[in-house]
Amino acid sequence: MSDLEIYKSQGFAQIMGVGLAPALVIVDFVEGFTDPAHFGGGNIKPAIARTVPLLALARSLGLPVAHTRVVYADDGSDAGAFCMKAPGLKKLTEHSPLSQIVPELSPVAGELVVKKRQASAFFGTELAGWLAFRRVDTVLIAGCTTSGCVRASVVDACSHNFRTILLTDCVGDRAMGPHEANLFDMGQKYADLMSSEELMAALQRKIPTKTAAL
Amino acid sequence: MSDLEIYKSQGFAQIMGVGLAPALVIVDFVEGFTDPAHFGGGNIKPAIARTVPLLALARSLGLPVAHTRVVYADDGSDAGAFCMKAPGLKKLTEHSPLSQIVPELSPVAGELVVKKRQASAFFGTELAGWLAFRRVDTVLIAGCTTSGCVRASVVDACSHNFRTILLTDCVGDRAMGPHEANLFDMGQKYADLMSSEELMAALQRKIPTKTAAL
Amino acid sequence: MSDLEIYKSQGFAQIMGVGLAPALVIVDFVEGFTDPAHFGGGNIKPAIARTVPLLALARSLGLPVAHTRVVYADDGSDAGAFCMKAPGLKKLTEHSPLSQIVPELSPVAGELVVKKRQASAFFGTELAGWLAFRRVDTVLIAGCTTSGCVRASVVDACSHNFRTILLTDCVGDRAMGPHEANLFDMGQKYADLMSSEELMAALQRKIPTKTAAL
Amino acid sequence: MSDLEIYKSQGFAQIMGVGLAPALVIVDFVEGFTDPAHFGGGNIKPAIARTVPLLALARSLGLPVAHTRVVYADDGSDAGAFCMKAPGLKKLTEHSPLSQIVPELSPVAGELVVKKRQASAFFGTELAGWLAFRRVDTVLIAGCTTSGCVRASVVDACSHNFRTILLTDCVGDRAMGPHEANLFDMGQKYADLMSSEELMAALQRKIPTKTAAL
Repeated sequence: MSDLEIYKSQGFAQIMGVGLAPALVIVDFVEGFTDPAHFGGGNIKPAIARTVPLLALARSLGLPVAHTRVVYADDGSDAGAFCMKAPGLKKLTEHSPLSQIVPELSPVAGELVVKKRQASAFFGTELAGWLAFRRVDTVLIAGCTTSGCVRASVVDACSHNFRTILLTDCVGDRAMGPHEANLFDMGQKYADLMSSEELMAALQRKIPTKTAAL
Repeated sequence: MSDLEIYKSQGFAQIMGVGLAPALVIVDFVEGFTDPAHFGGGNIKPAIARTVPLLALARSLGLPVAHTRVVYADDGSDAGAFCMKAPGLKKLTEHSPLSQIVPELSPVAGELVVKKRQASAFFGTELAGWLAFRRVDTVLIAGCTTSGCVRASVVDACSHNFRTILLTDCVGDRAMGPHEANLFDMGQKYADLMSSEELMAALQRKIPTKTAAL
Repeated sequence: MSDLEIYKSQGFAQIMGVGLAPALVIVDFVEGFTDPAHFGGGNIKPAIARTVPLLALARSLGLPVAHTRVVYADDGSDAGAFCMKAPGLKKLTEHSPLSQIVPELSPVAGELVVKKRQASAFFGTELAGWLAFRRVDTVLIAGCTTSGCVRASVVDACSHNFRTILLTDCVGDRAMGPHEANLFDMGQKYADLMSSEELMAALQRKIPTKTAAL
Repeated sequence: MSDLEIYKSQGFAQIMGVGLAPALVIVDFVEGFTDPAHFGGGNIKPAIARTVPLLALARSLGLPVAHTRVVYADDGSDAGAFCMKAPGLKKLTEHSPLSQIVPELSPVAGELVVKKRQASAFFGTELAGWLAFRRVDTVLIAGCTTSGCVRASVVDACSHNFRTILLTDCVGDRAMGPHEANLFDMGQKYADLMSSEELMAALQRKIPTKTAAL
């Protein structure tokens, strides 16, 4: 049997579906991940470009939106095990150009900006409670890297019991092997895989836009 | 550049090393994951066999040992998003033969048995505090599946700031593609990869055995 | 200024209100807390009696219901700092009569039974995710002791961003000084204080009962 | 029986003791809690004064030191249930004078500054992992308010399985009734109560100072 057949025979990859109350979580689309000289490369830039219309739609529909940045203290006092594996992370400080959200996805007032030190957007942060406060039942995930902070955030979103939708063209990675391998894992076990086009069509069918409601 | 070269150029895959106080965490080596008709297959059985001497050494050295099982309530009242993707998980109830730890790795008194509902051994469980209480600084991970509960547990072990050592021949998966892909990701970002032979040699050099201490 | 005036002048004790989707969480109403020879005494028994009609109403309205028990491993392997302060807790094992939920509040199928080792119903448990999965926005709390596991659970419910309602006559404590002092603290900072009568009236106004919906 | 006799008869208030590796956690000693016009009053200022020599000793012994501040986003995007009860908390933004640590306890390089939104220093923060990374087994707690963020942090410190020592003269509250009541609760269930004088004597006996080690 192929890998896919094994998973199929064991009943994985069922569909969660988009629930009643989705929120968009954009993971680590910051300058340092657009540049191959730091943590970027691969298909990250096109993934950012595909996230621009998705963010615009989420805003027009009034969905909760959260962004994440990796931010370590200037003196490195909060660096831990993760920085032992990847010491360059310590460059991502509050005012470093590398840790600023890319301008085309700049947060607006009312959107949550999560500062995190670990891979997952949820670990040691206020994100889960922020979503619960808004009665969110579905987390839509864009960001980078697919095999790193996106994967960790998807696993945690599912573990927090949110229906989790991974936007396949809105996530990117510095290397294509891990990108593809992680899409497979997540689609089998933790998230539904959808293109942004499919998702945007689904959202527009389900939720009247603010404009439409006038 | 190859995937590996990209990661190398960005400074990943540094060595954490085994610290002063390791503990062994064995993830989900239960009957249901040995059987391809349920969640098993691939190289899981050989990984169990390789974990037997590792567990024996950990015990002889007096290291803290924790085991995990997936356990859902008989009435499914605690099933959530993860069970939407993989409904078969709900079979893993307290008394189901499928959720019993394999006999060759049966826990002994004083070892922690974590009952979990999510992929990670740490999520919604007492494991992190149990390790902290013992001043553990290093988590040695065996178990299955490499691309599922092991990966999730490794990411969380690192996020909890434990040095994390993945025993490459003591972890197994139902399918080899995801097994290999996840070893790569974890070795780059969250854990040191060691064979059980290497690790056992390192442990024996560092820590006098109980017997030796007499 | 009196204590109350100080809090008032600083703007505490605003009303959260009952939201759109309440759930009932009953903390540690187990046999060992009804008996002064173990952990009981004071007004715990009357609080149990007042919780019986509340639970009945919650069920008739179809609200999610969760119960907690303190459960330590038979071999004490999971006892930690809390058991250093109160070693008797270790008696509360899976099959000890002391850790069984009192019969008048026995869980029924579909209700969550949380097994916990710490004071809070949320700490190291699946409760927050279970509530989020049901889009709960309001946690109604009954149980014991007011100054112990109830207080810890109320603080965590608020920290998880649930509107938190403490049912003043459905919580009890072994000693009345701490009971009263903790009602004050919680009402100022973490929860609305309501009698079960007030709350039941509010619920009946807001949510059509299952029967009524026929 | 008095409250105290009831607790005694049930075996509470055992001593945890100072372990091998203490750390100092100073909770919310920020400007807004020194001023009765905001969140201050009572015995908070004397508690700050008593914490000055304690912090000096901790530094001279090389103990890990963490400070907490309550910090909400300028746009209030991260305000939740806690701010429903106490809306004034939203004034505590990154650059507000009210949320700055008092100058006599200013953090120095290498000390962790935790920015939190909930009562507990641990909730949704990196604190537990930061302590685990340093193999801390004992948390020494100073700060304010005794009945609020100190109590919540003490309960969580104990739940994370740290031996927890509350410095009775280094914690303060805006009102004395809750201060006293919470000292009682914490001393019975979650922490050892020690004066800073007692603790400093104990630390000096146990750990050679950096100076002494030269």
